[in-house]
Amino acid sequence: MSSDLFSQLVTGDRAALAKAITIIESLSSQHIAQADELLTQAIQAKKNSFRIGVTGVPGVGKSSFINSFGNLLVKDFGKRLAVLAIDPSSNQSYGSILGDKTRMETLSVLPDVFIRPTPTGGNLGGVARRTRETILLCEAAGYDTILIETVGVGQSEYVADSVSDCLLLLLLPNAGDELQGIKRGIMELADIVVLNKIDITEKQILLQAQTDINNAVHLLPARHEGWTVPVLKHALNNREDEITIWQSLLTFIEHQKANGAFEAKRLLQKEVWLKEVVRDKLESSFFNHPDLDRKIQKALVDFSEGNKGLGKLASELILSWKQS
Amino acid sequence: MSSDLFSQLVTGDRAALAKAITIIESLSSQHIAQADELLTQAIQAKKNSFRIGVTGVPGVGKSSFINSFGNLLVKDFGKRLAVLAIDPSSNQSYGSILGDKTRMETLSVLPDVFIRPTPTGGNLGGVARRTRETILLCEAAGYDTILIETVGVGQSEYVADSVSDCLLLLLLPNAGDELQGIKRGIMELADIVVLNKIDITEKQILLQAQTDINNAVHLLPARHEGWTVPVLKHALNNREDEITIWQSLLTFIEHQKANGAFEAKRLLQKEVWLKEVVRDKLESSFFNHPDLDRKIQKALVDFSEGNKGLGKLASELILSWKQS
Repeated sequence: MSSDLFSQLVTGDRAALAKAITIIESLSSQHIAQADELLTQAIQAKKNSFRIGVTGVPGVGKSSFINSFGNLLVKDFGKRLAVLAIDPSSNQSYGSILGDKTRMETLSVLPDVFIRPTPTGGNLGGVARRTRETILLCEAAGYDTILIETVGVGQSEYVADSVSDCLLLLLLPNAGDELQGIKRGIMELADIVVLNKIDITEKQILLQAQTDINNAVHLLPARHEGWTVPVLKHALNNREDEITIWQSLLTFIEHQKANGAFEAKRLLQKEVWLKEVVRDKLESSFFNHPDLDRKIQKALVDFSEGNKGLGKLASELILSWKQS
Repeated sequence: MSSDLFSQLVTGDRAALAKAITIIESLSSQHIAQADELLTQAIQAKKNSFRIGVTGVPGVGKSSFINSFGNLLVKDFGKRLAVLAIDPSSNQSYGSILGDKTRMETLSVLPDVFIRPTPTGGNLGGVARRTRETILLCEAAGYDTILIETVGVGQSEYVADSVSDCLLLLLLPNAGDELQGIKRGIMELADIVVLNKIDITEKQILLQAQTDINNAVHLLPARHEGWTVPVLKHALNNREDEITIWQSLLTFIEHQKANGAFEAKRLLQKEVWLKEVVRDKLESSFFNHPDLDRKIQKALVDFSEGNKGLGKLASELILSWKQS
């Protein structure tokens, strides 16, 4: 059944792609084997894409930027674009879908665009893994450019970095006040900075912001050898600005590929991913063992009576599980 | 050596207690066996205490409340008091010690009082476990009343709940605005609510706050059968207010003991604790296995080539580790 679904998916059938992602996201045990099969098929398809993280605080204009920039990529550069939105503040997937499609009005109606929110239920655990898997499925479905939108709060920017090739940080150019609000952490993750909404910014303020952010960027330790984080600007729907941003993204990828950092990051992401899957399986295998409850209760008695220390009890539980 | 340390600790030697806690908190592998021995001895000592969590947003006046309330407990009720402060925003233990002792000026100089901050380094992982272990050591050292202070942000209130018998929530009585700022989550955890700093609150505002918070409390599902969360008040250094709060705490504990909920919560806390220790040991045993790196690298090749799915690779890694 999942091989039928996969063969529909590779033809670019969006309904099949959406269904496959739902299977991947499902926590139900009946879907685990099917999800694993879909992923193996996706890896065997050996498709690829340019994976771009887009992050920034709420209100910075991520969705309008993606709507406008996405139109350029699809219409002028012939890209097939998937947009994955991770919003830790939303836990209703339907609300998010509606929200994103409304905010990305002109983008969502294009035939070469696929938009998908990732509901997190307020909890980022497992989101990186599901996003990586969704990326693979989108690639198998022929999407060659993937934007991963995350709101730059609550550590979701780390998720974006852990699944993308390049992280674009959007900032508002209200110099001074605003700079203090930028967490050092998020600045350290940025590969390219874009000052957004400059069409509604006074010239003097914009110049000051560019200076301040350039200074901030230079004070940080270099994230990639030989790469100075560019501080670009973007006015809503300004094609010239967007072409400059796209070229900067391409230059970055070229730079990363030339010195091996691109492949190194992808390999590291795979290793982190594998370890996450192992960790999940290890815990569920241990804690779902049929005999565990009885053993835990027995260990609790020994613990409460002071017969044995916690460390010793834990080691014994693990040993007995390993031998079972 | 640790049995020497423990025998000093039980005589009430504070330096020995502080040293034992440092051993517990240490992440160094040379201390693991010693920490386990200290804890086993502490459990065998079978001492007990009343464990009270005190939480509230920054600025609500937790430290001045504890300073004043603690003085009452020690001087008027003859308690031996330990104060454990968990501050996720601080990652410098020396800074915290200084801060807490300054803010609890008259309390920190009493001979029957032990104050200890728990540095979290901004990360709450493992803090519940270390706090539970610190509580055991304090009990063995003869402290019969333990206040666990946590700042009510970033989920540290859940840590407080998971280690205490009763959770006291301090609120500022600036009705209206303030009520909106109260997260539903923290209200749901409170066993007793105290409106703090009422000496600097206008009477009308205080009355309104009491009404609003009482209403809020009644709208929430009951946390304990037969227990209506009381909304008390506290003016700085007001002995009468503090006696009322202490009596309310005792009434709560009596109520919980009468229906078995006290022991049930303690047992659940022990089970959570044991499972945390098992989880840590399971992961470190797997990921520190000498042969693991080679196997992970081999699995990554199979994964990248699409030879096998991630789920299958993870299962194989776990199986091979179990058999090793």
